Amino acid sequence: MNGAQALMKTLADAGVTVCFSNPGTSEMHFVAALDHEPRMRAVLALFEGVATGAADGYARMAGKPAATLLHLGCGLGNGLANLHNARKGRVPVLNIVGEHATHHVKYDAQLQSDIETVARNVSTWVRTSASTGELCRDAAQAVAAAVGPPGQVATLILPADVSWSEGGVPAALPPPVPPALADDAVIEGIAQAIRSGEKAALLLGGRALLEPGLLAASRIAARTGVRLFAEVFPTRIERGAGLPHVERLAYLAELASVQLHGLKHLILVDAKSPVSFFAYPGKASDLVPEGCRVHALATSAQDAVGGLQRLAAGLGADDAEPVLQAPLRPGRPRGKLTAEKVCKAVGHVLPEGVIIVDEAQTSGVMLPHFTRGAPRHDVITLTGGAIGQGLPNAVGAAVACPERPVLALVGDGSAMYTIQSLWTMAREGLNVTTVILNNKSYAILNVELQRVGAAGNGAGAGPKARAQLDLADPGLDFVQMGASMGVHSVRAATTEAMVDALAHALATPGPHLIEAVVPNAFSGLKLRLLPHILGSLSGLPQPLARIIKRKVAP
Amino acid sequence: MNGAQALMKTLADAGVTVCFSNPGTSEMHFVAALDHEPRMRAVLALFEGVATGAADGYARMAGKPAATLLHLGCGLGNGLANLHNARKGRVPVLNIVGEHATHHVKYDAQLQSDIETVARNVSTWVRTSASTGELCRDAAQAVAAAVGPPGQVATLILPADVSWSEGGVPAALPPPVPPALADDAVIEGIAQAIRSGEKAALLLGGRALLEPGLLAASRIAARTGVRLFAEVFPTRIERGAGLPHVERLAYLAELASVQLHGLKHLILVDAKSPVSFFAYPGKASDLVPEGCRVHALATSAQDAVGGLQRLAAGLGADDAEPVLQAPLRPGRPRGKLTAEKVCKAVGHVLPEGVIIVDEAQTSGVMLPHFTRGAPRHDVITLTGGAIGQGLPNAVGAAVACPERPVLALVGDGSAMYTIQSLWTMAREGLNVTTVILNNKSYAILNVELQRVGAAGNGAGAGPKARAQLDLADPGLDFVQMGASMGVHSVRAATTEAMVDALAHALATPGPHLIEAVVPNAFSGLKLRLLPHILGSLSGLPQPLARIIKRKVAP
Repeated sequence: MNGAQALMKTLADAGVTVCFSNPGTSEMHFVAALDHEPRMRAVLALFEGVATGAADGYARMAGKPAATLLHLGCGLGNGLANLHNARKGRVPVLNIVGEHATHHVKYDAQLQSDIETVARNVSTWVRTSASTGELCRDAAQAVAAAVGPPGQVATLILPADVSWSEGGVPAALPPPVPPALADDAVIEGIAQAIRSGEKAALLLGGRALLEPGLLAASRIAARTGVRLFAEVFPTRIERGAGLPHVERLAYLAELASVQLHGLKHLILVDAKSPVSFFAYPGKASDLVPEGCRVHALATSAQDAVGGLQRLAAGLGADDAEPVLQAPLRPGRPRGKLTAEKVCKAVGHVLPEGVIIVDEAQTSGVMLPHFTRGAPRHDVITLTGGAIGQGLPNAVGAAVACPERPVLALVGDGSAMYTIQSLWTMAREGLNVTTVILNNKSYAILNVELQRVGAAGNGAGAGPKARAQLDLADPGLDFVQMGASMGVHSVRAATTEAMVDALAHALATPGPHLIEAVVPNAFSGLKLRLLPHILGSLSGLPQPLARIIKRKVAP
Repeated sequence: MNGAQALMKTLADAGVTVCFSNPGTSEMHFVAALDHEPRMRAVLALFEGVATGAADGYARMAGKPAATLLHLGCGLGNGLANLHNARKGRVPVLNIVGEHATHHVKYDAQLQSDIETVARNVSTWVRTSASTGELCRDAAQAVAAAVGPPGQVATLILPADVSWSEGGVPAALPPPVPPALADDAVIEGIAQAIRSGEKAALLLGGRALLEPGLLAASRIAARTGVRLFAEVFPTRIERGAGLPHVERLAYLAELASVQLHGLKHLILVDAKSPVSFFAYPGKASDLVPEGCRVHALATSAQDAVGGLQRLAAGLGADDAEPVLQAPLRPGRPRGKLTAEKVCKAVGHVLPEGVIIVDEAQTSGVMLPHFTRGAPRHDVITLTGGAIGQGLPNAVGAAVACPERPVLALVGDGSAMYTIQSLWTMAREGLNVTTVILNNKSYAILNVELQRVGAAGNGAGAGPKARAQLDLADPGLDFVQMGASMGVHSVRAATTEAMVDALAHALATPGPHLIEAVVPNAFSGLKLRLLPHILGSLSGLPQPLARIIKRKVAP
């Protein structure tokens, strides 16, 4: 048994049965070994960012890692942005990165580069396997490291000769490490803080946003009046009718500050203390209000759900009734198509059990609002801020959950980073509906140009700067784009067409693409007023701030 | 003047007047500063690999660096593969990578990652500018480092607050460092080796493949009988009628060994000693024949052309007549369209002064043969082996040389890594003709699967392995793909259509795409026999080996 064959068996034994791949010469023995392991499914991508983003999306839904197969340092580099998103979302991913044969490295051939340094950007577990005999033990440790807790990106570098030599010995996973328990004293301290009656909120992240965590948190809220927030970009959140509704913190720091205003206790549950996504001149990065104490109920290495349940027990809330979202759908949208109406159409037609992948940026701000009472669904978001995540995540989610429809809502700018995903959707016949909200712009950068003060004092940005945010010349034709890669594609230029196309696509298995032609969600007067509105938000009376927040925040 | 404005002036003063960009929020002040510097042209890319590959192609033709503008570690990651190609080609590139404001880094916001580690994969010069006051001095040093010699990728990391703060002070470049002279004693030693009459060859790389170096080398060859080779993947080679013809070393190690067979002296002129591209079980990586001495006339930090000229003088060859290639065109190809006939069509119609970007892989093996006597042209190749280089390189070459047609020959698999390049071609109205040789396969991997012995002993690869190399299901429609990004696109399914489309495109300004539908260059019997032919090549009588080489080697 050569190294590659033993590795393949080790992975399959460990439950790693999907490999998102873009191989080259140094990975050919791994590729050949696919035919020796019927449990392993290999899903080919035309670009490595598709493979890594698919592994991310797969693990979010499957709850276990997939492997990627990447070609040396350059292949890893191409996959880095979506591995970054996985890292920030604490998602388990196992990279298998081919390397030159051990004796070939010293010749510094064309593709030679330092793979380990690149890997360290996203992986704390990085190892170049030194021999065929050690390979499977290394692989088992890599899988265990990826699984965590917390989940992480583990990178196993596989020299070609380690792969092709005989003497591979399949290895078993080390025994799983249960997550550490949250500390009793910490939980009691948090219970006391909540009992004090001071304004408090739970900030839920990671696994706490799945049903068991949501229910425990909702019981606590129902009994004590504590508020519930979800982190800005959840790795995966279960929501919709029949589940507790949790409001996400807003992307815009100014709005998040309104949400957090007046808190005396912010209790982190597998979530980071909230900070501004970017820095802005003269504005604070730390969003925790002054005088607010931050408590960590559970870190990402600890059992967050168990911690919530124990907190509920400590507060006598374990028999409280959680507040469940009632079924609620928006009416059928009509009139001129806008991004808001695309979101409304989603809420109007969404069937049960859909996995929504949200990378719609400015076009998606109303999505949480319109889907709040839709049939139960999952939402996957842009955890690391590296755009180009949505389409690959949709590939992975569809591979993980073939029985569930996947709906990817993606901005035109974001879509183009990893547009090759469409081909893999077609090749694998994946049940993904891709909606590309084409506003012919990096619209969010129009907002950010204003927010960072780069647009000048009222004068606005100059023509060269504005051209850097503009995708209208030439406009991208996503119907031809989708068709070029074998995906059934239509354009929706009216609201009626959008609703019909969406309902059809979600009801018809296989990949679909809908190009929704929409104006910028923030343009004209709205864009010019934005800095003033945002700038003065903290000073507004709370009811008014809440109204604005409801209109704008995700 | 803020940091970004001072930086922009520093760059323009240093001759860096093109920036290939894909900005985000942290780069907005740099973007705004574009309107303060009329000398700076910003070329937007939809994906960072396009921006970095364009900067590479630009510098190869302009002989000076362009800047890239990339968004944090993830943007740099997306651009890494083409920066690798630039690094291996010793091409000057200046990366400007935005970073969070210095005071924001500690909050580990979503996009935070360790940019410097990623940069070190491709850059020996990496610096995070610490203050607005120091920024321009850092930038000037970065440009100087990029220019070299040797050319390199320099990465300047630009925190947002360093960019937006007032107090920027434009800086001038340090005085240029002339390349070190090749050593007199070394040149004399080489002259003696050549005079010995033992079989010797010059291996030319880097700047030695432009006209002055080629002429000096050809004079030496004419006078002494020394053979001339070019490195496998030249950064840029000038060739065609009226220039000395230099044979490139073959990609396939087995063929390169035939080319180098019997040499006693291999003289490196800004070239690396030849090694196999990949390692293969049981085969040597080092391609220098036993008993052959390797001499370095000039390293990449030294004046290679001056070294050649001094060697010519030492050998009394400076008045020798260089052997110039006579004009020679293949006839018009006819019959069923094949990759070979696409190459023949190029040779048949090529106008004067074209820049050929060759990433055609297996489909391009006959290109050097058929263009040998075509009107004078340049060829740019895949220096680092990281595919996805061709289309971005074409973007950059066209920006550098607006008066010259660019012809990019790219395989279907390669094209898909950076297909977003087509949009930038359309947006900028670049004079690029893209020919995508669509054989519906990672055809080179079929060859490599055989060569590394992964296909089994005669049994061939299994269906899962073969599927990993297959791009036929679904087939990619590059006509729709090109049209979706605004590029005039046609399909050539016959040889007649191919010749006509190519002639039309090269004569008509603006971007064009021709999808050439071709069979695998290596398939069926040819593929099955390849390992046997290659394996036994070294044992063949030389004339037979030469015939095979002429048919197969680039």
